Amino acid sequence: DPSLKVFSLNSNPTLAQEIAENIGTELGKCAVKEFSDGEIQINIEESVRGCDVYVVQSTSEPVNQHIMELLIMIDALKRASARTINIVMPYYGYARQDRKARSREPITAKLVANLLETAGASRVIMLDLHAPQIQGFFDIPIDHLVGVPLLADYFEEKNFEDLVIVSPDHGGVTRARKMADRLKAPIAIIDKRRPRPNVAEVMNIVGNIEGKTAILIDDIIDTAGTMTLAANALIENGATDVYACCTHPVLSGPAIDRIENSKIKELVVTNTIPLKEEKRIEKITELSVGNLISEAIMRVHERKSISILFD
Amino acid sequence: DPSLKVFSLNSNPTLAQEIAENIGTELGKCAVKEFSDGEIQINIEESVRGCDVYVVQSTSEPVNQHIMELLIMIDALKRASARTINIVMPYYGYARQDRKARSREPITAKLVANLLETAGASRVIMLDLHAPQIQGFFDIPIDHLVGVPLLADYFEEKNFEDLVIVSPDHGGVTRARKMADRLKAPIAIIDKRRPRPNVAEVMNIVGNIEGKTAILIDDIIDTAGTMTLAANALIENGATDVYACCTHPVLSGPAIDRIENSKIKELVVTNTIPLKEEKRIEKITELSVGNLISEAIMRVHERKSISILFD
Ligand SMILES: Nc1ncnc2c1ncn2[C@@H]1O[C@H](COP(=O)(O)O)[C@@H](O)[C@H]1O
Ligand SMILES: Nc1ncnc2c1ncn2[C@@H]1O[C@H](COP(=O)(O)O)[C@@H](O)[C@H]1O
Repeated sequence: DPSLKVFSLNSNPTLAQEIAENIGTELGKCAVKEFSDGEIQINIEESVRGCDVYVVQSTSEPVNQHIMELLIMIDALKRASARTINIVMPYYGYARQDRKARSREPITAKLVANLLETAGASRVIMLDLHAPQIQGFFDIPIDHLVGVPLLADYFEEKNFEDLVIVSPDHGGVTRARKMADRLKAPIAIIDKRRPRPNVAEVMNIVGNIEGKTAILIDDIIDTAGTMTLAANALIENGATDVYACCTHPVLSGPAIDRIENSKIKELVVTNTIPLKEEKRIEKITELSVGNLISEAIMRVHERKSISILFD
Repeated sequence: DPSLKVFSLNSNPTLAQEIAENIGTELGKCAVKEFSDGEIQINIEESVRGCDVYVVQSTSEPVNQHIMELLIMIDALKRASARTINIVMPYYGYARQDRKARSREPITAKLVANLLETAGASRVIMLDLHAPQIQGFFDIPIDHLVGVPLLADYFEEKNFEDLVIVSPDHGGVTRARKMADRLKAPIAIIDKRRPRPNVAEVMNIVGNIEGKTAILIDDIIDTAGTMTLAANALIENGATDVYACCTHPVLSGPAIDRIENSKIKELVVTNTIPLKEEKRIEKITELSVGNLISEAIMRVHERKSISILFD
């Protein structure tokens, strides 16, 4: 369908290429460069008049650069008379700034939603939002895909015997439950608490993990502190092996070192944030969300329900 | 007046400090940091409830970082119940992307205006916009200050005898005329033209410059190509000395090398974009717009006309 065009910005060129191939089209021609002073220069090099355009961009690091690239691209597409401007945002940056945890904090996740709408986005396709409430920050349609099936299918093939799915904190129990349902396994929870202020946290494990293969699951792994401490606590308390997985491998600061030096046997992630060269270590396996997203794009474009992608 | 608060972000801390001192207040307490993954973290550390807040931030390099810092700060101030959020933006980045010069270009100067309003800005105080039409991109009040008097006063003290004010291109003639009026001097224009496509430009000088001290004036000096070629052409055509000045010293890429190696005797700039250490060379003089801006803030706050600042 020539009225469906897929453009890539700078965050996920490989994923965008895969999506275009799945859909049976070529990536739209577009040069995203910088002027000498660092201002972003975008030239869309083919007509988009009347087209349904899909722009692939995660707001991953460098997050502010990626946000501005996206906003400027949306502005250019709008002025070039695109019919709809659909943002494919595998990773939604600033998602953890989704409430005023303290006085006078910004709610940057809401700000970014407003910025996207102001620029002219018609729809956003996202994956595993840190908080599903962020959907309500938008007044345009959001299609929210989930990464758990992809991760679960990978582990299913390993045919582990005595399995337990572990949430590294209280916030992630629902996610662990979903994974456990697919793998027909029980769950456990790392129940961290601080007995008194300024006293080290105690890692208490709720659930039975002894002699089992444990799979830790989270949505984001950032500095990997939570994950690696959890993994080590599981081994200390009698788990046989510890695997870990997440949808969004932010992996900033000490993350790679911590993972290398932890008891995690294998970390399985997706390419919503592509792994930079120096993060491609043996312990980490990267799965592609390309099929999931291209399926979603085609169903959206053909006006079919995408709820089937949630099972 | 305790209801007037001045906050600085990361672009112009020295200028913000000077403004606060002029106004007789201290800079508002606010920590602008980064999380491990590069996301901006802002903590406003004093109440702003019911206050008229002035935030000093140029959208200079790194422009995308500075824009996002500003938008997040506005969001935080809005949610902290500031009465008005006044943006002091000495340099307005992306000002040269103010029209579709070619098909399918963005108009990023308008996008940024929309973003500022969406975030919650009540007013913007700016200096020497690249195109005054950008004021019309906003639906909130804009106070537009001019830097020519500051630059002219500096040259006036030099008591040059036989002076001519030169515009380096056709677009800057009005600005040169204003400077010439203040210094009671004639004007000249560098009239570049390309005889045929792919043939080098010819530097034609309209006006009499022989035996005179020339002052080149522009609003922005970016890579300094135009300015240094103009200066050399003036000397070749008989000018005695060439000075140059501008409001906004972007000075990217080869700018400093070009200025060092040019016939420019002295370049006078303002601190709307503070000079980084490596750009502080002997040929460049930096004047402060601190007095001009603090005067404007005080007049705005006291509900007085600021048109007096334009003479
Ligand atoms: N990029 C970030 N890196 C680390 N912490 C963050 C980041 N953004 C927000 N936060 C903090 O993370 C907390 C929210 O995380 P969560 O409780 O997992 O939703 C808030 O207190 C935020 O201040
Ligand atoms: N940051 C920048 N650096 C260099 N050129 C730019 C920049 N932003 C926009 N432009 C181009 O500069 C031209 C406008 O400059 P002007 O004619 O001086 O208003 C347009 O063709 C823009 O594409």
